[in-house]
Amino acid sequence: FFPEMAASLWKNLLQTTKERILQQRRASLYIDAHGYEEELIKKKLQQFAGGSINLSKEDSGIGILTLNNPKLMNAFTGTMMLELQERVTELENWKDGKGLIIHGAGNTFCSGSDLNAVKAISNSQDGMNMCMFMQNTLTRLMRLPLISVALVQGKAVGGGAELTTACDFRLMTPGSEIRFVHKHMGLVPGWGGAARLVRIVGSGAALRLLSGAAGVDPARALHLGLSEEMLSSSDETGALEEARAWLSQYTEGPANVIQAVKKVVTAGRELPVEAALRTEKDVFGTVWGGPANLQALVRRQRHK
Amino acid sequence: FFPEMAASLWKNLLQTTKERILQQRRASLYIDAHGYEEELIKKKLQQFAGGSINLSKEDSGIGILTLNNPKLMNAFTGTMMLELQERVTELENWKDGKGLIIHGAGNTFCSGSDLNAVKAISNSQDGMNMCMFMQNTLTRLMRLPLISVALVQGKAVGGGAELTTACDFRLMTPGSEIRFVHKHMGLVPGWGGAARLVRIVGSGAALRLLSGAAGVDPARALHLGLSEEMLSSSDETGALEEARAWLSQYTEGPANVIQAVKKVVTAGRELPVEAALRTEKDVFGTVWGGPANLQALVRRQRHK
Amino acid sequence: FFPEMAASLWKNLLQTTKERILQQRRASLYIDAHGYEEELIKKKLQQFAGGSINLSKEDSGIGILTLNNPKLMNAFTGTMMLELQERVTELENWKDGKGLIIHGAGNTFCSGSDLNAVKAISNSQDGMNMCMFMQNTLTRLMRLPLISVALVQGKAVGGGAELTTACDFRLMTPGSEIRFVHKHMGLVPGWGGAARLVRIVGSGAALRLLSGAAGVDPARALHLGLSEEMLSSSDETGALEEARAWLSQYTEGPANVIQAVKKVVTAGRELPVEAALRTEKDVFGTVWGGPANLQALVRRQRHK
Repeated sequence: FFPEMAASLWKNLLQTTKERILQQRRASLYIDAHGYEEELIKKKLQQFAGGSINLSKEDSGIGILTLNNPKLMNAFTGTMMLELQERVTELENWKDGKGLIIHGAGNTFCSGSDLNAVKAISNSQDGMNMCMFMQNTLTRLMRLPLISVALVQGKAVGGGAELTTACDFRLMTPGSEIRFVHKHMGLVPGWGGAARLVRIVGSGAALRLLSGAAGVDPARALHLGLSEEMLSSSDETGALEEARAWLSQYTEGPANVIQAVKKVVTAGRELPVEAALRTEKDVFGTVWGGPANLQALVRRQRHK
Repeated sequence: FFPEMAASLWKNLLQTTKERILQQRRASLYIDAHGYEEELIKKKLQQFAGGSINLSKEDSGIGILTLNNPKLMNAFTGTMMLELQERVTELENWKDGKGLIIHGAGNTFCSGSDLNAVKAISNSQDGMNMCMFMQNTLTRLMRLPLISVALVQGKAVGGGAELTTACDFRLMTPGSEIRFVHKHMGLVPGWGGAARLVRIVGSGAALRLLSGAAGVDPARALHLGLSEEMLSSSDETGALEEARAWLSQYTEGPANVIQAVKKVVTAGRELPVEAALRTEKDVFGTVWGGPANLQALVRRQRHK
Repeated sequence: FFPEMAASLWKNLLQTTKERILQQRRASLYIDAHGYEEELIKKKLQQFAGGSINLSKEDSGIGILTLNNPKLMNAFTGTMMLELQERVTELENWKDGKGLIIHGAGNTFCSGSDLNAVKAISNSQDGMNMCMFMQNTLTRLMRLPLISVALVQGKAVGGGAELTTACDFRLMTPGSEIRFVHKHMGLVPGWGGAARLVRIVGSGAALRLLSGAAGVDPARALHLGLSEEMLSSSDETGALEEARAWLSQYTEGPANVIQAVKKVVTAGRELPVEAALRTEKDVFGTVWGGPANLQALVRRQRHK
């Protein structure tokens, strides 16, 4: 194997990775080749109905995604998993979108999977398929070109805690808790929560949170970098209003520019530095000399 | 080179990496192909005898590894390097293991290499072989499916400081110090201490610690994220008892679940995000529907 | 595709990456094959003259790089971009170099690009070429085997803020500010500032800084890990003196040892852990048994 060939291969691979980020954000992490049986698991999930995932796209460019199954603390039924996938597709196609807030109905976030669904798919094949289905959806959620916030009221437990890590930020209301309870269920995260948690709080803190399975309150979360801010409202309307105001600091401006910012940060956190630099250059090329850029240059000229 | 082929190659490579983590944790970082001469360096190391590395496997699933060469501040002789490799092999095969505490005899941690051994192998070939021998052992130590703690009493200097970075956590007793003294010896770390330190405290702090070569006391270590906790005991028995109690918070539960937690965190810190996600899915598959998981589901059902 | 072949490929690729770090630090990130037209952009940049980039190499092994275009707050004209490239080449060849301080003339750091140059190259092809030209230079700056400090007085705005991220450390004087103002110009960073910022402060803080475009004062920068220290002097001479003293803590010792320290940290932050470990071993080999190492062993022996 000649070094030149290896170098050329390496370039090709990085190129491929970069293009995947830029153009194929919607590409699935798991496909048939991984033994993933999407149609099979979708049929199974369809059998466990209840609750809903609702999306409201506001004029401000902020989407509100509501986990709605309050009698089970917003646990994911099978049909909610399917609906989450559909809502993510809708968000990927939202040209004017800039931000996203994920919250739960009834003053609590999410308690993971509905146990009825879980028991019915406790065999290995179904479990792996469910796991791949959710990882595919949450990876696409993480890579949305929107600035995303998990608004945590009440409890974010198990899969609910994992879901918060697919967002860029976490805001917590007084008395709320994020808890990776998996160990007590004889499990580890399977929706990608461990891989993402390591990137948010570092591997040491992630190991303590996962092996200790203790609840993290807002003050501790702030200290660990697991949360950005402790909100003051405890009720749903007030908390949502606070989250919207917090997020608006970062979504002011043209949608394509905000989306470009999110894309360069996504590249920075997912790719080796050289690939991240090249992606940054490509994203820069999509806004350089564009309308917002030209207007800003004219504005500057006038101020002189 | 067609993109499809590059993409397929990439998938194969990530797959390989993942499998290495999962199934070949014991594979060596250096083999013959790297110019590594294991038998040669083992013979050399055998000539510099003294001290010992002792392992006690407790019923709780916590192993206590003692660096024992107190008259040289637990510096590594050649035979201690050989014994460390044997103890790591023993720990890899410990099915009931959950945690590990590494500490030094006589109220101090470790002062690196024994100078007699060092001088005798100061030629380039021996130095590189020793370096690869120790990196192989410490990489396997870092990847053990056990939650590991370096209990730092007294001084962890040079190679001793490097050894602490192969553990998941560092706990320090009052008056203790971690010091990357290499610069004053005209050196840089060679046992992997630099690569691992960057991952623990970030590249900026790592650069300051290595280029400044200043001692880090418990308060500073805590601030930098180099240590998790300042213990209150200064004596060996008390400190060991405290470390055991601290670690027990994280090792409660079935061994296979604790080991699975460590595996997903290892994947999260070593692999690109997509490979980490796939590894997490595979590790999840080893516990999903397993005995601890099924018992937990039954327990939950009863509580309803 | 056989696993053995994939494993061998992987080894080759890592090897290639490592060698690039060690031996080809000066290799360009972008070459012709990326559509980069270096001669073309150099001719364009030549047309926008003004200001200068001055380098003074002090006997202590610390270089002082001055951005000198005070009537435009040290904005980069075309010729300054060309001169920065030349100064970086000079620093790569400085055998006795150990540290570098980058600062701006007239009590301010740098306001990015000169708008006259920017408007003249606002077409896509020129913009991309300028972007690749600057990324090539700043990537080489980041990988210099010198410990580098951006001394921020006054304002580091836009491209000026990006330049600070190519240094190992940032020191800020009272009242100074780092501001990623790009969003307000309808842009994202294109000189590599986003990719590097994510590595310095984490992806969450980077996303807030880039999407909020707010100024970061010294206290906030310290809290975020964007800066190491708040200096007390506000005037150029005093600030430079303070920065020199701060840096001297880390540059004491032989140049080849300090450079080796920077190299292992560079490997640690840029490479996957196995490749970083192998690079550390190789850099270790360049100092092991070298003059500084042998002298230290003799010194130790005498103290016995």
